[in-house]
Amino acid sequence: MTSKRSSSHISQRYDDELAAVKSQLFEMGGIVEKQVNDAIKALLEVDSELAERVVIDDERINDMEVAIDEDCGLILARRQPAARDLRLVLTIIKTTTDLERIGDEARKMAKQAITLAEEGKAPRGYVEIRHIGENVANMLSQALDCFVRQDVELALKVAQDDKTVDLEYASAIREMMTYMMEDPRSISRVMSIMWSLRALERIGDHARNIAEHVIYLVKGDDVRHVGLKQMAKTVHDQ
Amino acid sequence: MTSKRSSSHISQRYDDELAAVKSQLFEMGGIVEKQVNDAIKALLEVDSELAERVVIDDERINDMEVAIDEDCGLILARRQPAARDLRLVLTIIKTTTDLERIGDEARKMAKQAITLAEEGKAPRGYVEIRHIGENVANMLSQALDCFVRQDVELALKVAQDDKTVDLEYASAIREMMTYMMEDPRSISRVMSIMWSLRALERIGDHARNIAEHVIYLVKGDDVRHVGLKQMAKTVHDQ
Repeated sequence: MTSKRSSSHISQRYDDELAAVKSQLFEMGGIVEKQVNDAIKALLEVDSELAERVVIDDERINDMEVAIDEDCGLILARRQPAARDLRLVLTIIKTTTDLERIGDEARKMAKQAITLAEEGKAPRGYVEIRHIGENVANMLSQALDCFVRQDVELALKVAQDDKTVDLEYASAIREMMTYMMEDPRSISRVMSIMWSLRALERIGDHARNIAEHVIYLVKGDDVRHVGLKQMAKTVHDQ
Repeated sequence: MTSKRSSSHISQRYDDELAAVKSQLFEMGGIVEKQVNDAIKALLEVDSELAERVVIDDERINDMEVAIDEDCGLILARRQPAARDLRLVLTIIKTTTDLERIGDEARKMAKQAITLAEEGKAPRGYVEIRHIGENVANMLSQALDCFVRQDVELALKVAQDDKTVDLEYASAIREMMTYMMEDPRSISRVMSIMWSLRALERIGDHARNIAEHVIYLVKGDDVRHVGLKQMAKTVHDQ
């Protein structure tokens, strides 16, 4: 009796540990999401104070990455999870890496926002930042949602949306280049817009990565690099 | 006697598995290194055939990432490694991610090489590509070396070199912007140089990441985000 109780006690603690690290990850996701939204806002509203805060708050994200990774290492060492629990821990490790990189990209955007606040607004590009920014912020929010709800359909949608963002990004870059040629005095400020667009495009890639990790977690299949068609097949296979 | 032989048999197989996945990782590292060098060469020599090959060969790197990750997952599930073996497996998982991203950046550079082969050579920027390219290729080679030899001193050097590359990159970007303002007709081609410089700078970041993973593997301390001073302290602590 005692032994049974103690073993259920241990398994309860194990479940608690997994739940705790998962909730840390979601907390990190929430902070990263806020960083991205704030960086976009700082760019659009030429708000250097908000941008400075994004740069400073990136530290918190870095600390969370290290803490979550450490907890995952401890769970692997002590609990030796198998099957789906093991996939969960591996997925969390991969996802923290993507979230940390998204944080980096938000910081880069914030730095461009600070530059633009000093040099004066760029003459163009805000429509593109707003539009692509909205799409990418949406992708990130859905990527985190699909993890919370283990929703592979939503994960597939995120991957599909990344394709749209890539096309929009390429078209925005072409437009910015044309504009620079027409007005060379604006080159430096338009470049800040281009680097920010690039950061947004990268954030879209990382959101897609997170969605792919979720499909691996739920379906057990690694869908990186397989293409959208094969990914849809994996998602819809029972 | 039988049981002892069989248990040493199992442990021999475990060692073999670890050695096999490590050697796969180093093979992947070698291919990625070649991709980076070829992408730089394709840019400098306006060699679109070589560039096309880099784009195609990126598939191989993606496949290796998936295969190595799968093997690591199997080792974790079956062997439940602890302590340093566990750190090794986690380090390999993280390192494949960085190597795959380096492969992506090499592909991006190769695509810019193809664009430049079509549009005609950029009027400037090749000195910078050559110089930063050499430094970054060197960092990558040393990052892989320090993994093979578990050499934390060399890992520290890679992290220090990344700082130099970042400064050189920033200065090259400023120069390219000045040049675009002087000669707006060259904007599109100089942009290809700028994206390539950006890719090189990112490769430097990933080489630094790999070096940090090696320090974690050998020293057990996570030195991401701690700064070079603290990193040196960790490396030199007995």
